[in-house]
Amino acid sequence: MKKPLRAEIPRKAIYRLSVYLRCLQRLKANGIRTVSSEALSKAARVKSTQLRKDLTYFGQFGTRGLGYDVEQLSTMILDLLGTNSLQPVILVGVGNLGLALLSYKGFEQEGFEIIGAFDIEAARQRGKTGNIPLYPMEKLSEIVRKRTVKMAIMAVPASEAQEVTNQLVEAGITGILNFAPIVLHVPDDVMVNNVNLAIELENLSYFIQQ
Amino acid sequence: MKKPLRAEIPRKAIYRLSVYLRCLQRLKANGIRTVSSEALSKAARVKSTQLRKDLTYFGQFGTRGLGYDVEQLSTMILDLLGTNSLQPVILVGVGNLGLALLSYKGFEQEGFEIIGAFDIEAARQRGKTGNIPLYPMEKLSEIVRKRTVKMAIMAVPASEAQEVTNQLVEAGITGILNFAPIVLHVPDDVMVNNVNLAIELENLSYFIQQ
Repeated sequence: MKKPLRAEIPRKAIYRLSVYLRCLQRLKANGIRTVSSEALSKAARVKSTQLRKDLTYFGQFGTRGLGYDVEQLSTMILDLLGTNSLQPVILVGVGNLGLALLSYKGFEQEGFEIIGAFDIEAARQRGKTGNIPLYPMEKLSEIVRKRTVKMAIMAVPASEAQEVTNQLVEAGITGILNFAPIVLHVPDDVMVNNVNLAIELENLSYFIQQ
Repeated sequence: MKKPLRAEIPRKAIYRLSVYLRCLQRLKANGIRTVSSEALSKAARVKSTQLRKDLTYFGQFGTRGLGYDVEQLSTMILDLLGTNSLQPVILVGVGNLGLALLSYKGFEQEGFEIIGAFDIEAARQRGKTGNIPLYPMEKLSEIVRKRTVKMAIMAVPASEAQEVTNQLVEAGITGILNFAPIVLHVPDDVMVNNVNLAIELENLSYFIQQ
């Protein structure tokens, strides 16, 4: 049950581990203590061979015929993902999308705390961010360093995205969840995950054509 | 320059074509008429071998030494994606996220028109959806059929998502962009693209750990 090396696991496998975790949490909530690889793979909608392969990253475990211990497997995945303690995150860009993300309950449930929001026109958005402090962009570097924040959610217009990215990287952010529909240029040690809503719709559009 | 068969192209290649399209549109806006595969692949941040492979889905084209015709390649990708005419889309679930998606300018720019929003408590949200008509869920089937809508954006709570999905499928929707953090069960001829914001953050969390 060694902790795997970071580089060993591909990005797609990490996504699947997140899905397994959600299935395990539902089982736990329903008082279920062990689960077979067949049942878990069915709930996660992957092949059971895929599931078993993904779990080999944790080394050998599970008892033949008894399946996986729900609690133990959840903890191992949480440890691996680094979300077993609440992680501080900042949000940049308090437009409509930014406001929606601030009020999205899912982040805190999953171990992320948005500790501050930043906007170029912070004064204009004052009062809209609820309990989350709102800062002007000039405060970015100070807050990121003081709270040792590593992750940022970026919901700024495409025209501002690269400039804001540069500021985030400069301040010490190493993971960016980007909602702007452009390809960001970052140093090799910074990771960007892109959420492009229009591209998701385009992709659907292709597959539903007759 | 034959139109490729639907099943020939994998989902990941379709995502890359969407990215190429955005790069081409930027080139066009800057008055650039031809582009080399090296320049285009650099802008899209893919290997040029990957780009050339992806474009073979369109058969042989491009003139050796001159590169691709920006206008022609854009049109071919738009045709393939089915987004060269405005496509009607509905949105279900008018909470914070739903409202943000309704005000998101990117969809219309990319060829999608949200023709109506649906909510179980439509009366409560009245007046918030701007120019987009707001309907109670009972109207879903009627509007989808009348306007021949094929795609839906679903921004409802996880607890409602499967039930709403069943209603969408029943009404004739074949493509669902799902924001609820659960795995949806749909018939084989219905396509679901999932956008799970917490999973994207978890994925980042893994990769930025030391």
